[in-house]
Amino acid sequence: MKIPIFDPGYRDISARTGFSGNRLERLSENRGPDLQAKSLRNPNARTMLVGGGRVLLANEGGRTKLWFTVAEAEQLGGTIRETIVLGTEPNGEPRLATPIFFEPETVPDGFSFKDFRAVYIEGLLGEEDLGALAQGGSLVAWNSTHRFCSRCGHETEMADAGYKRICPSCGTSHFPRTDPVIIMLVISSDNERVLLGRSPHFPERMYSCLAGFVEPGETLEDAVRRETREETGVPVGPVSYHASQPWPFPYSMMIGMYGRAENETIKLDDELEDAGWFTRADVRASIEGEPDAKFIMPPKGAIAWRLVEDWLDG
Amino acid sequence: MKIPIFDPGYRDISARTGFSGNRLERLSENRGPDLQAKSLRNPNARTMLVGGGRVLLANEGGRTKLWFTVAEAEQLGGTIRETIVLGTEPNGEPRLATPIFFEPETVPDGFSFKDFRAVYIEGLLGEEDLGALAQGGSLVAWNSTHRFCSRCGHETEMADAGYKRICPSCGTSHFPRTDPVIIMLVISSDNERVLLGRSPHFPERMYSCLAGFVEPGETLEDAVRRETREETGVPVGPVSYHASQPWPFPYSMMIGMYGRAENETIKLDDELEDAGWFTRADVRASIEGEPDAKFIMPPKGAIAWRLVEDWLDG
Repeated sequence: MKIPIFDPGYRDISARTGFSGNRLERLSENRGPDLQAKSLRNPNARTMLVGGGRVLLANEGGRTKLWFTVAEAEQLGGTIRETIVLGTEPNGEPRLATPIFFEPETVPDGFSFKDFRAVYIEGLLGEEDLGALAQGGSLVAWNSTHRFCSRCGHETEMADAGYKRICPSCGTSHFPRTDPVIIMLVISSDNERVLLGRSPHFPERMYSCLAGFVEPGETLEDAVRRETREETGVPVGPVSYHASQPWPFPYSMMIGMYGRAENETIKLDDELEDAGWFTRADVRASIEGEPDAKFIMPPKGAIAWRLVEDWLDG
Repeated sequence: MKIPIFDPGYRDISARTGFSGNRLERLSENRGPDLQAKSLRNPNARTMLVGGGRVLLANEGGRTKLWFTVAEAEQLGGTIRETIVLGTEPNGEPRLATPIFFEPETVPDGFSFKDFRAVYIEGLLGEEDLGALAQGGSLVAWNSTHRFCSRCGHETEMADAGYKRICPSCGTSHFPRTDPVIIMLVISSDNERVLLGRSPHFPERMYSCLAGFVEPGETLEDAVRRETREETGVPVGPVSYHASQPWPFPYSMMIGMYGRAENETIKLDDELEDAGWFTRADVRASIEGEPDAKFIMPPKGAIAWRLVEDWLDG
């Protein structure tokens, strides 16, 4: 059995994907009944305002502002009592996430209420803020879709500063959900071509890695083989892990894997619009944004981009 | 960036953990309104009977029987209408999971109602059946704890043969939950010692790898560093993936990782009863079951065992 030789000059491959830059101290051992109130009272607390997969950003002289004081958040219409404590900055200042929602026509002047995807594609936030947004966005989404107890139907109450919901009727504690998704670059046996697919809902000309939810009772490796076979008919042999990426749509965890195809015959199912094998030259043209590339890639920072670029460089 | 060189004589490391041997064809693209009824009508269908983390086993002349006909399951008191379709054997025979529950005193003669942990520790089932049990156990648990809509509190209805629950009031579709858990063997910088800990609820003398739930908005690597620092104060640098294991308690996915310690000073938190550094000799004595070993290991087949043994052999 081969144990990896750790690279002394390492930086996680995962750290080179979007939404992975979160550096807040999560205080996960110190959550409790007082943490929310104490954090809200701290004059140095700052909160992001999120809801429905969107975040409120202010434009202040060309700079994008993500973090607001609690007073500002209240004035803007945030639901302060449902504020989640994400953690603290190294200097101890609390960082929070407060639920809010606007219809497009009610967004206040000077602000935008941006889809997380647009924030990330347009590069509106730095790595660390984008990482905090993944945490805040996931937790606000989970709290908002778990207001009732799945065991008995009673209303639940937020606890532990947003990391738990308790049912006062049956006593069940509910914890945030994180859905593992495997996303895989399947490589031909001669290592010269890769299998990419196109979902009907993709932007025009876009192809990407195959992906799917991990099912109950399967390993990550078996999930890669099952999804690839189901979607394209291609049998996959060895599988290896590459990187992971928080993915707040609404609360997934992308797990990037390589797989080696045992043969290359494609038999499409209904889920994909198309799938095909692309050469190194095809893929390089897309990565480099050449106008006559056969297809366009998902945005830089997507774990699919990471898998593809690292294969090209490997 | 280094892309792994696939081993042509591969067998997944994950396949060498307990609960990972599931080989059923999951039919995940063909679930739908008719699958349950059609499968129940198939005379070659067989079902396991599970509930509350336990499974009904019959002892038939020294052989442990896991699979029952639908008629047998009904006679034994299984809730047939809540039967989940796990998939099919290669010959097309359906394999199902039917909810059941017994108090200890009501278990019928000739049967045992065994905790999944005991089934696995006592080696009562073969690899493939243990894998199917992970799938069936997780799905029955998820369905039984999600009878109500977490969005609106209305009762939900099972759909897609147990892989979905629909709320007839607000229309939300709910999907099975799989909780990713990182479990890590942290290795000293000279590669001669490993960090193991002891939870208060462990059997006497047992030490194991540290572990914890992946939080919203963090990568797997960051989760390893956070949990290790929180539980033991030990800072971890590079992290690498080793293997994964389905873990039906009640529906987790264990993700086994190695991490390299940046220093070895331990500062315990409240969660662990103890943690310490163990040498190769200490660990080998435990793996080999020597009576004077400093500690005992979790059972063979646990991913912690896999991490430790593969480090020793590596």
